[in-house]
Amino acid sequence: MNKFSHLFEPRSIAVVGVSDDVARPGSQVVRALLKNGYSGKIFPVNPKYEQFDGMKCYGSVAEIEEDVDLVVIGVPAKGVLPVVEMAAEKRVPFALILSGGFRESGPEGVERERKMLEIARGSGMRIVGPNCLGFANIHANVYAAFGSITREPKLKPGSVSLVTQSGGFGYSIALACEAAGIGFRHVIATGNESDIDAVQLIDALIDDDETKIILAYIEGTRDGRALLDVGQRAMARGKPLLLWKAGVTEQGARAAASHTASMTSSYDYYSAAFKQSGIVEIREIDQAVDYLKALEGGKYPSGGGVAVMGVSGGSAIVFADAGEPAGLSLCELTEKTQASLQAVIPNIGAVHNPIDLTAGYFSAGNRANLETAVRATLEDPNVHAVCVNIATTGKAGSVVAAEVLGEIAGSSEKPIVVFSSAPAGQIGEALAVFARSNIPVLPSPSRAAGALAMLANYRQARARVERATASSASRQAAAPSEVFPRNAQGASLSEADAKAILAAAGIPVSNDVIVSGVEEAVVFDRMTAPLVVKIVSPDIAHKTEVGGVKVGIRTRAELEAAIAEVLENARQKAPAARISGVLVTEMIQGGFELIAGVVNDEVFGPVVAVGAGGIYAELLGDTTCRLAPFDEVTAREMLDELKCRRILDGVRGKPALDVEAATRALAALSQFAWESRHQVGEVDINPLFVLPNGVVAADAVIIPRGNTTSQPVSGDPS
Amino acid sequence: MNKFSHLFEPRSIAVVGVSDDVARPGSQVVRALLKNGYSGKIFPVNPKYEQFDGMKCYGSVAEIEEDVDLVVIGVPAKGVLPVVEMAAEKRVPFALILSGGFRESGPEGVERERKMLEIARGSGMRIVGPNCLGFANIHANVYAAFGSITREPKLKPGSVSLVTQSGGFGYSIALACEAAGIGFRHVIATGNESDIDAVQLIDALIDDDETKIILAYIEGTRDGRALLDVGQRAMARGKPLLLWKAGVTEQGARAAASHTASMTSSYDYYSAAFKQSGIVEIREIDQAVDYLKALEGGKYPSGGGVAVMGVSGGSAIVFADAGEPAGLSLCELTEKTQASLQAVIPNIGAVHNPIDLTAGYFSAGNRANLETAVRATLEDPNVHAVCVNIATTGKAGSVVAAEVLGEIAGSSEKPIVVFSSAPAGQIGEALAVFARSNIPVLPSPSRAAGALAMLANYRQARARVERATASSASRQAAAPSEVFPRNAQGASLSEADAKAILAAAGIPVSNDVIVSGVEEAVVFDRMTAPLVVKIVSPDIAHKTEVGGVKVGIRTRAELEAAIAEVLENARQKAPAARISGVLVTEMIQGGFELIAGVVNDEVFGPVVAVGAGGIYAELLGDTTCRLAPFDEVTAREMLDELKCRRILDGVRGKPALDVEAATRALAALSQFAWESRHQVGEVDINPLFVLPNGVVAADAVIIPRGNTTSQPVSGDPS
Repeated sequence: MNKFSHLFEPRSIAVVGVSDDVARPGSQVVRALLKNGYSGKIFPVNPKYEQFDGMKCYGSVAEIEEDVDLVVIGVPAKGVLPVVEMAAEKRVPFALILSGGFRESGPEGVERERKMLEIARGSGMRIVGPNCLGFANIHANVYAAFGSITREPKLKPGSVSLVTQSGGFGYSIALACEAAGIGFRHVIATGNESDIDAVQLIDALIDDDETKIILAYIEGTRDGRALLDVGQRAMARGKPLLLWKAGVTEQGARAAASHTASMTSSYDYYSAAFKQSGIVEIREIDQAVDYLKALEGGKYPSGGGVAVMGVSGGSAIVFADAGEPAGLSLCELTEKTQASLQAVIPNIGAVHNPIDLTAGYFSAGNRANLETAVRATLEDPNVHAVCVNIATTGKAGSVVAAEVLGEIAGSSEKPIVVFSSAPAGQIGEALAVFARSNIPVLPSPSRAAGALAMLANYRQARARVERATASSASRQAAAPSEVFPRNAQGASLSEADAKAILAAAGIPVSNDVIVSGVEEAVVFDRMTAPLVVKIVSPDIAHKTEVGGVKVGIRTRAELEAAIAEVLENARQKAPAARISGVLVTEMIQGGFELIAGVVNDEVFGPVVAVGAGGIYAELLGDTTCRLAPFDEVTAREMLDELKCRRILDGVRGKPALDVEAATRALAALSQFAWESRHQVGEVDINPLFVLPNGVVAADAVIIPRGNTTSQPVSGDPS
Repeated sequence: MNKFSHLFEPRSIAVVGVSDDVARPGSQVVRALLKNGYSGKIFPVNPKYEQFDGMKCYGSVAEIEEDVDLVVIGVPAKGVLPVVEMAAEKRVPFALILSGGFRESGPEGVERERKMLEIARGSGMRIVGPNCLGFANIHANVYAAFGSITREPKLKPGSVSLVTQSGGFGYSIALACEAAGIGFRHVIATGNESDIDAVQLIDALIDDDETKIILAYIEGTRDGRALLDVGQRAMARGKPLLLWKAGVTEQGARAAASHTASMTSSYDYYSAAFKQSGIVEIREIDQAVDYLKALEGGKYPSGGGVAVMGVSGGSAIVFADAGEPAGLSLCELTEKTQASLQAVIPNIGAVHNPIDLTAGYFSAGNRANLETAVRATLEDPNVHAVCVNIATTGKAGSVVAAEVLGEIAGSSEKPIVVFSSAPAGQIGEALAVFARSNIPVLPSPSRAAGALAMLANYRQARARVERATASSASRQAAAPSEVFPRNAQGASLSEADAKAILAAAGIPVSNDVIVSGVEEAVVFDRMTAPLVVKIVSPDIAHKTEVGGVKVGIRTRAELEAAIAEVLENARQKAPAARISGVLVTEMIQGGFELIAGVVNDEVFGPVVAVGAGGIYAELLGDTTCRLAPFDEVTAREMLDELKCRRILDGVRGKPALDVEAATRALAALSQFAWESRHQVGEVDINPLFVLPNGVVAADAVIIPRGNTTSQPVSGDPS
């Protein structure tokens, strides 16, 4: 934990706010430290007492003669600032502020939090909290916490570290994990995150040798790029990062805003960051438990082919139902495997997948047969993972299954998961054997499928992220570009200007000419009919509404009439509008309309989105996005995610469309979005036609960042 | 259980196949009956023994002098038929056949099953199984079962009855329920369902006074209409029916076919039957547990407004995230409520929804405040249900919460659910109080939301099904119609014939004229251009491919040319095709294309489907279906389910379309589908244009049932 080592393994802790009232946070902290056998020094602080729990009690932090690594503050909000000031003067490196009454409680609290941070920054003191439950270093018995974290059951030591913005709910997850036998390293509740935030802690935990898996619950982050970075670093270091992003729905986000005053951003951007970094998203307590169990096994299937074997046919069907949408399939077994199975499975069973071992197969007398069956199945080249449904199998049978599977698991790289529905009290012995062998036991076939699918996806994500991370680094090195004419700041660019900028960035645009009147209709001879004309005016946003658009122009005479008409319409319906001319363009036919664009988000920086065009697609939200910049492989993955993707390959006898060109255009747009991040607020290409040969941006809008360009842009390398 | 009472409460049971081998099914049955205190007579049967477990052992069923209500058969497959024969001769009313080796095991087994059924039918003997684990009547201690059903833990008596096609997996669900404190009435594994099937048993359980809730796991049914009927009857009797339909995915269905040889049908039809009967679908073991807990409370929210209160802000956000897509919202609280809360909640809490009671609120000293807060919230008219997050609250606090909530719950019709993450061992006392008060305690906020959403949906479904059931009865009374010309059997009807039939059924069709050649182009004067022409031939299925369609015809001269062209194209590209003429129709512009149709399914009878037209919609599967016949309210619900629904209301300045006309057309189509069920195999209306005024079927195909019309049609009243 490098720079945070004196925070999480402090040699001495001052606890400000101890009291005769055992319920007070300060009192709870001291007792938790004592009860759990903290080996460093404890300095209770309260001017009212001489002694606390048999220890000397100090009148203030300043009175402590020795060095203090961590000051824990549990006094009411109004009393916090003087303590922070004193700790800063004493050069205490870390403060943990449990007290509420800060940003979450209104204007007075906001100001209090600002001042607190100012004092801390002045001395270089780092702060956890305020408004949090504290933290526990389970391995080192440091319980700098109050409330649920300090109560029974005590978490057992293990390799999972938990970072949570909500101490209460985060600890609910920890308790479920504890009940499932999962052990912990660090448990840290971050509260308001005035200074040290969840992302910084995850970053530090990646370098903690004792932490193998990181579990986090967050309601928001103020730096989406940092989240992406820690995700990628965790992946590179082989430490799975499981993240629960709460507040994903509109009402959830509202609740978040009123709860922790965390900065929330659109869930889509989080989702993009997860994909681009291999962060494993969780959405339910049981899911966290299942995934941790499966990840502790440390084996990842190299594909989605699963062999399901067991004594319950229904369980296999349920596994298949849940596995299919998650990308798993019940693979075919080779003839060799089936022959091996035939020799050890009764005739009324089944040697194809799902393998029916027949009732009562898990028994002591059958140990050798079971071993042969499992080995043959694991050795099948089509099989990437095995799910064994022991289902309701009782004490004796489950021990046989656990022993046989445990022995075989050691010599195979393919993961094995087990579904058991027998009461834990009945099969405790088997569960212990499974646990020792790192074979996860799940309480339903669907959850077994979910855990296996996650493992397979994680392996895929690792390959994807490794490639994309390398590629992204070189792309980010590109210098910021200056794309705008100076006078463009603050207003929307004209279609013509926008298209010129995008064309320069490598995105094909339509063949346009701007004319000033009918006398220039001669451009007809240089273009391919049918044509479209559109009024050009900085003051007319919705051209169609003023009769400013005419389509399907097939002759020069029609073009002359159309130019005259749109100019006349604009004069009549928008008499005050400044008219820059009339844009003449070739009507694009055939192909499929996409919409592509850029949003320069406060939290995530430039994000590129692409989706299917048209009203129907819009209703369905057939879109996806990624944080810019990204390469063509990522661009292609985005297109492959769209529900409309199959249309691009040509359906109902239509020609295949140029997916490669769309891919290049998206990657170019992402590079443009990155390089122009100081200037560009939004880009909207609608439609982006995908044609049998090439793509064409038929209309485009660029909105500058305007007055925000002077502010730091998230994701800017500094 | 009326007609099955001697099956499930037999006065005497003969068990054929007892043996010294305790593992043999027959031996297990006798021991389970004895161990559980069965009060009737037991007749063990095996010619090899004089005695079994101290009882007289009979050489055969025929040798038993007394009446036998139930014969349980556990001998190997080959020995089953003679026993069935003997039981039939002895006029035993019921047989339970545990043995495998029937339909599921190949041709020989199929023949064995057929013969078995023939013998039984001859005497009127009814059969459960073969290839099943048996059943247990928990209240009456009748354990006519072997395997997991007879092992520890013994299920406690209760009001839930379970019917399962898979004994193994079904009992996995039962074990999870047992662990959650849910008690059972009947547990019945049906196996191959040669005779008595799951649907018939559910039907009987509806009339069982001791059964309040029915839980079923099925992989398929042979009579979808019967499933619909029992669902509606269960709803009418106020007994929730929870059903897990496994084999919903393609690979799941494949697994089902190889497992039980159950007849499976498209999952969409099951889904329609669930909607039309209020069957509560379950897809996971935990979901069954949660739903049963919630349903045992017997209170149903009258809307989706939920007040969330508790000590964990994160839990409230997670509830909101899960609740929103399920139709729940965190409602606004009235000023009156907020004022009441203000008086009893500390200042650092929150009196808006979610209500933050602040940490430590659940304590003995705070009992009166808690009571006031909960009462005020429950009395708020915007609140339809309350979720109390006690989260990690420990032993003492949880007891306070349980006692206060338990007391208040008794005087309110609004359901209360609780989220607790404390270990069950720690808060056992509170859990007991909650259980006595029928307040479900769920282990995550998402699961609390899921349970509440189900309760709200069930109440809605009840109103919907009551109305639709009444309406459907009158519709079903309509006599079957004879819609076809005699020569239409077995082939696809021409577009013109199909449209004529649909028009007669009340579905508006396009204004078409069939001409034989250019000399009849005079029809132009009677029609509204633009027009479309299509070749008419019983031998040309894909008109476009032979150049048989021309669109956008604006003048009589163009019409003449088009008629000549399509005739010539057909002559050249399909020289052997019989040409009936050329269909001239008005081109329909504006509006939105739907696709509507009928499938006359073997299992479910006539089903009407509707969906959005166009390639994109097709890719996304924006369709829904219902079993015919149904009324306009149901038709409207179908349209409201479509993702494209909002387009019909007019988007982007387009006029609203005639949803009422589309509704009428769908209801008419369903009535037609029902009345023509003996003759019509499929109807495909593509497109069905929804216009600003009215709808028009612009193309239609009707495929007769052909050779299948002589077979019984599922759903036919008999």
